[in-house]
Amino acid sequence: MKRQPDRSRDDRALAYEILDEGLVAHVGIVVDGQPFVIPMAYGRDGDRLLLHGAKASRLLRTSGGGVPVCVTVTLLDGLVLARSTFHHSMNYRSVVVIGEARRVEGDDERSRCLDVLVEHIVQGRTAEARGPNRVELRQTDVLALAIDEASVKLRTGGPKDDPEDLDLPVWAGVVPLTLARGEPIADDGIDASLPLPVAVQGS
Amino acid sequence: MKRQPDRSRDDRALAYEILDEGLVAHVGIVVDGQPFVIPMAYGRDGDRLLLHGAKASRLLRTSGGGVPVCVTVTLLDGLVLARSTFHHSMNYRSVVVIGEARRVEGDDERSRCLDVLVEHIVQGRTAEARGPNRVELRQTDVLALAIDEASVKLRTGGPKDDPEDLDLPVWAGVVPLTLARGEPIADDGIDASLPLPVAVQGS
Repeated sequence: MKRQPDRSRDDRALAYEILDEGLVAHVGIVVDGQPFVIPMAYGRDGDRLLLHGAKASRLLRTSGGGVPVCVTVTLLDGLVLARSTFHHSMNYRSVVVIGEARRVEGDDERSRCLDVLVEHIVQGRTAEARGPNRVELRQTDVLALAIDEASVKLRTGGPKDDPEDLDLPVWAGVVPLTLARGEPIADDGIDASLPLPVAVQGS
Repeated sequence: MKRQPDRSRDDRALAYEILDEGLVAHVGIVVDGQPFVIPMAYGRDGDRLLLHGAKASRLLRTSGGGVPVCVTVTLLDGLVLARSTFHHSMNYRSVVVIGEARRVEGDDERSRCLDVLVEHIVQGRTAEARGPNRVELRQTDVLALAIDEASVKLRTGGPKDDPEDLDLPVWAGVVPLTLARGEPIADDGIDASLPLPVAVQGS
């Protein structure tokens, strides 16, 4: 974690809060000097991140050991409308984690990691759905990255207008943004008597 | 654009639709072999992307010419709950653009770019807010990237369960996700008689 004397503990707590709230990570890798940024599902397993996604896994498979990656999770919290165009902005919280990602080896360990990934999306779901079999586990590629070198960046609050603009007859403020869950849509053939997943019932 | 015989035209239209709907881009750059992924505001100016963000601009300023970047915009559309944990997924639409980003030079051109960036966030806003002055334009760093090499990836629809799982007594389906705009919060000192920005009135 980016160490700042009074903030390191808080920063880690804040980073974990952001990571636990996000749903998609943007994972950066380098191939022949060209950066690629790939959206991936992820989960937090204590002090490490787990990543899951076919394309990046294929790219990483070409490497024997760890691969330098950057994992960024961003939550958008609001549009910031200032009285001047120059001071328009967005409220957000983001975490950037850099390090070397490694493939998770072993069926049992990958099974546990798959649980972490699913629970990250829908809490309680692993107790409801059928768990993975050996064939599925062999098809599951999970990458792990220690959360050692990480930094948090965020913006909160209203617009920061110049003093001389404060009396302009221009509305200024914040439009909050939230990732909202809609009404669940049952798959074909789902019996109406089946209970909704616990985590979805509030939707 | 990734050329596929029958789809190239549609792919560009689809890419632009996704780019126009997104609010934040995840921009990948490489520094000494290490990838970094930075969330940035962006806008589409015809067939090029404009990027705005202090930190990446500083990194790119160290380079004289163009810099290899990857710009990824991802829209989350839903959580996909399958009957097995293995087939859990997410519905999303994403665009990946790679190329060389260059700083936009010239006050007039940067002024126009700043307008594009603000209009991307809040349509119609440049007609309401105070435009940039010369000092602000000198402080504005905008990067431009041609949308030549781009690819679209997406997932839609319900879970793809194995046939032998279809009769399991497990709810399966999709929980739709949308980035929702909340009730606008006026800044301190905003007179209640001031009209809301046109683009925000529906919020």
